Amino acid sequence: MAQTPKVAVVGLGSMGLGAALSLLRAGVEVVGCDVSLESRSRFESGGGKAVSSLAEAAHGAGAVVVMVVNAAQTEEVLFGADGAQGVLKRDAVVISSATMSPDDARRLAGKAEQAGWHYLDAPVSGGSVKAAAGEITVMASGSDAAFAVARPVLDAISVTVYELGDEAGIGASYKIVNQLLAGVHIAAACEAITFAKKLGLDLEKVYEVITASAGNSWMFENRVPHILEGDYRPRSAVDIFTKDLGIIASIGHKEKFPMPVATTALQLSLATAAAGMGRDDDASVARLIAQVTGLDLPSKNM
Amino acid sequence: MAQTPKVAVVGLGSMGLGAALSLLRAGVEVVGCDVSLESRSRFESGGGKAVSSLAEAAHGAGAVVVMVVNAAQTEEVLFGADGAQGVLKRDAVVISSATMSPDDARRLAGKAEQAGWHYLDAPVSGGSVKAAAGEITVMASGSDAAFAVARPVLDAISVTVYELGDEAGIGASYKIVNQLLAGVHIAAACEAITFAKKLGLDLEKVYEVITASAGNSWMFENRVPHILEGDYRPRSAVDIFTKDLGIIASIGHKEKFPMPVATTALQLSLATAAAGMGRDDDASVARLIAQVTGLDLPSKNM
Repeated sequence: MAQTPKVAVVGLGSMGLGAALSLLRAGVEVVGCDVSLESRSRFESGGGKAVSSLAEAAHGAGAVVVMVVNAAQTEEVLFGADGAQGVLKRDAVVISSATMSPDDARRLAGKAEQAGWHYLDAPVSGGSVKAAAGEITVMASGSDAAFAVARPVLDAISVTVYELGDEAGIGASYKIVNQLLAGVHIAAACEAITFAKKLGLDLEKVYEVITASAGNSWMFENRVPHILEGDYRPRSAVDIFTKDLGIIASIGHKEKFPMPVATTALQLSLATAAAGMGRDDDASVARLIAQVTGLDLPSKNM
Repeated sequence: MAQTPKVAVVGLGSMGLGAALSLLRAGVEVVGCDVSLESRSRFESGGGKAVSSLAEAAHGAGAVVVMVVNAAQTEEVLFGADGAQGVLKRDAVVISSATMSPDDARRLAGKAEQAGWHYLDAPVSGGSVKAAAGEITVMASGSDAAFAVARPVLDAISVTVYELGDEAGIGASYKIVNQLLAGVHIAAACEAITFAKKLGLDLEKVYEVITASAGNSWMFENRVPHILEGDYRPRSAVDIFTKDLGIIASIGHKEKFPMPVATTALQLSLATAAAGMGRDDDASVARLIAQVTGLDLPSKNM
């Protein structure tokens, strides 16, 4: 491409903020958009321009990166009363990164194409630290044209782009398979670390031994330190993990595909949200188990 | 130690065979012992000496490495009618590596000490490939004297020895926490890969994407290739994973400690065994799910 067009990043949570800052570092003209003043301020204090009006963000953009929570918010961003429709120009690309069902991805892609846009089904993985470094991975599917327009944007925000197929729904499918595993592994990590406490073990040592053994997972390695530090500020919240496992459970129900392990993890996640920890870090499942079983986990001195 | 005494390795399954071969390579006098002619032959074809009589193996040994399936077999090896008692000399060390409950480890240690032996609670992790290379990890607890006598044996068979405490039961506790995670991760891997199949995804690509993403686990990375190759020869059997999750579930019941995720993984494992696949590779949980849901997984051309 001769030049990267203006990019709008909608949703300046930890993933969107990281993407917007990465684009800024790459010298791309970028406008962030979020309803939250606090989120906008974070991007502005990193040198970015942030607005609350989607029309303003989308005006003149060649790409919109949508990093909101779910399909409903994505639909609102694109087609809601104050959405992109009527503002975002033809042949712009919508890079749609919220985790959603493949059916929703296909439906939104159809509507986007009717509006004259390219649509890239492009969920991401990697967490906030990698997002800030422009090192997430993207699980993308869509037309060649969508990939072509999106390419410089993806290059700026990610370290790996998996090109998984030529239509929307495929990227979303890979992402929910990843989320099934991630969600179960978080629940298993919380169950295992509290069981270790029940057995009277030294939890720091458990972390050392398990991360070098066959019981390890990316999530165990990443989340258990939150428990060891007693720090449940949300790097990723229980509500997110509840939402993603909920999407998986509904697909399973609709398709008659039983998933006993994933749906049990969902129940633990729901119980944690029900106990008032939905907006806390997803490692809070361990706090729930500790509360129920009368165990003392480390708590942060504040 | 001036010189490493003769070592008996009891149980020449994949882990015991690897340990015995590693001792042989280290120049230690080692005798393997197994009731199975086939297992003995494997060690003999590697240059080792193997016997069926435990009395013969234990006679004159300074250490007995017990790599059998469970606590009951370990007890039989040590105290059964044809066991080590009365043959194995005083101050020899019993290196007890079967996965068992902490209570069983403490009970067997007590009996071993009454018999005049040192007892090292020393379960292992790493799988058959690492066992063959002498690169397993050992999760060990026991007295200083037990560690001192066991040290040259452990050095020959393992790459890392975690010294986890000064009494039996602690090593066993670490191991079952590891097995909780390993068991859940196997079940989750099987559930996720069959769900991916249901969604119509390219399973080789799923493996590539997930192993580079936050949904990865040691077990996903290790077991899913068996499914992709349709090869269910037992590297580790469903029955082993059923046994280990069963130990965990009984402790949970006894201690009133609920483990919804681990016990759900146990149910999947039991269902797979019930369907006739108990002695096949533990990745067979995926075959069970595929059978139930009418999916075609890869099958090996034989």
